[in-house]
Amino acid sequence: MSRAKPVTHEIPPMKDLTTENITENVNLINSQCSNPRIRFLMERLVVHLHAFARETRLSSKEWQAGLDFLVAIGQISNDLRGEMILLSDTLGLSMLVDSIDHPRSDNFTQGTVLGPFHTHDAPVTENGYVLHKDPDATRLFVLCTVKDSQGRPIENVQCDVWEGDSKGFYDIQNPNRAEPDGRAVLRSSKDGIFYFNAVVPVPYPIPDDGPVGKMLKVLNRHPNRPGHIHFMFQKDGYDTLITALYPRGDPYKTSDPVFGVKESLIVDLGEVDEAISKQYDVPVWTKLLRYEFVIPTEQEAMEMRVAKATEAIGGVGLDDEGQELKLEYEVD
Amino acid sequence: MSRAKPVTHEIPPMKDLTTENITENVNLINSQCSNPRIRFLMERLVVHLHAFARETRLSSKEWQAGLDFLVAIGQISNDLRGEMILLSDTLGLSMLVDSIDHPRSDNFTQGTVLGPFHTHDAPVTENGYVLHKDPDATRLFVLCTVKDSQGRPIENVQCDVWEGDSKGFYDIQNPNRAEPDGRAVLRSSKDGIFYFNAVVPVPYPIPDDGPVGKMLKVLNRHPNRPGHIHFMFQKDGYDTLITALYPRGDPYKTSDPVFGVKESLIVDLGEVDEAISKQYDVPVWTKLLRYEFVIPTEQEAMEMRVAKATEAIGGVGLDDEGQELKLEYEVD
Repeated sequence: MSRAKPVTHEIPPMKDLTTENITENVNLINSQCSNPRIRFLMERLVVHLHAFARETRLSSKEWQAGLDFLVAIGQISNDLRGEMILLSDTLGLSMLVDSIDHPRSDNFTQGTVLGPFHTHDAPVTENGYVLHKDPDATRLFVLCTVKDSQGRPIENVQCDVWEGDSKGFYDIQNPNRAEPDGRAVLRSSKDGIFYFNAVVPVPYPIPDDGPVGKMLKVLNRHPNRPGHIHFMFQKDGYDTLITALYPRGDPYKTSDPVFGVKESLIVDLGEVDEAISKQYDVPVWTKLLRYEFVIPTEQEAMEMRVAKATEAIGGVGLDDEGQELKLEYEVD
Repeated sequence: MSRAKPVTHEIPPMKDLTTENITENVNLINSQCSNPRIRFLMERLVVHLHAFARETRLSSKEWQAGLDFLVAIGQISNDLRGEMILLSDTLGLSMLVDSIDHPRSDNFTQGTVLGPFHTHDAPVTENGYVLHKDPDATRLFVLCTVKDSQGRPIENVQCDVWEGDSKGFYDIQNPNRAEPDGRAVLRSSKDGIFYFNAVVPVPYPIPDDGPVGKMLKVLNRHPNRPGHIHFMFQKDGYDTLITALYPRGDPYKTSDPVFGVKESLIVDLGEVDEAISKQYDVPVWTKLLRYEFVIPTEQEAMEMRVAKATEAIGGVGLDDEGQELKLEYEVD
């Protein structure tokens, strides 16, 4: 008795396989998928995967090296180490997907990569919070606003902020981490203002002791990210903005290993004056970062996304009945 | 003090990143790689990866689902479970790479996928070996020759053979596996002959309790491979042949989930006659599989490989100095 599983539907028969027709055959078998968006994604995935192998005349050894590399990345990954995200980051895919899914016209703040250091255990706290206990750091007061496309302040936006310490370490890189450090979840005031006490960010290497670090070495690339502070903004009715700000003058700003720097996200640091010192209880001359974030509503974001998709490929693809495909699917 | 790693070489500065120029920027940074073959592979990889995201307008959710899928595959993988190979198999990539790296003109035996069930602990044994102890199996006597392109028998070829049992299980799928079963390493005689006692192979599902099985379900694909016996031939001076034979009449032969079936590898089973029975000490009427494998020398294989590459893309790519790239690189 064979263990073959019951098959209840008709299967389109493949042609006799050759190097030339295998792509067609794979897509024929995959065409049984009932979800048109997944069918479309798989069709393009198989076409590009096969074209890559054909164009490079990929050898079996190279193929094996590639599979081993992906397995090693999966095996080193855990809740605190996002090595697969790091691979995507270092190949520019993360940045590209963000710019496809969250395109921003010039009147909005640009997004950038989430990176592997965001966590979900940051303290939900008050404006004015001191992000780091780090005694060696150069202090930085961050005073920002969140506004809409009409220039109106948005209140009660959830503002996730996180950054490394004065040595360029995130808390989750500390094997003895007992509690979150260098991260917080704040809320904007009715004037759209949020503020916190940070440290002047410094450049740091992305984790390069794993498979991705090995890849960077083979590619003769350095792992140093220019110093930055991460921000994520969320509020019902608005599109989530994931971004970061980069103080000007960092030596790695034109060779960021994760391609996260955009000109519009580079900022000049100032210094706290008497008025700000008094109002926010921060010493004068403390380094100061001011920024005005402008975030779109869900409706505005969808309009920009569809406009870009239409400009790029005339839409996001049609299913067999000529219906526009939905952009997202739920994975159970 | 920052932890940034020392950088001793000039780095080509990126342009301000946009959706449009990120591919160019990534390839600019990767162009520092000193190995021209790896540089070429990375360039094509990044181009296709980005084109896939652009053409599908890939969403952040879909991107995340893809990364999670790859991590899950890495995590379930181990020495006895080749889930990443299974993914490559079910996307037709394994078959394609084999046909690119080991192209065969009609006078040679075609190759097919290695699959995830080959091991390196099969007993090195004599012709006539009984592959399975399985009492429920329909016995099959396998009597084959290995020849070169001139029709001359090749002696002392290492012949790896492996197959599932009468239920379609490979030994390594048995959690209590104490020793190899259903596999052997034989050598061809001076007449190029090798033979062993196998069982008539039955269809079986590829391991579908992991991420790849989940993918097949979403794609409405069945996991059943048509019954087959695996063969691998190795001898110094000859190109390794990895292949399999498929008895005719299997219901899954036109919908193999790993795209391993080729018309030339489908065989008709016969029965052992008096002469064979006497010569090889096998009962008459035992099912009989005869096949003549024809394997190329390394030189012949290289000529076919280069001819195909030249036909397909005019070569295998040139480096910056116009030198032909080597097809393989060593990964340390």
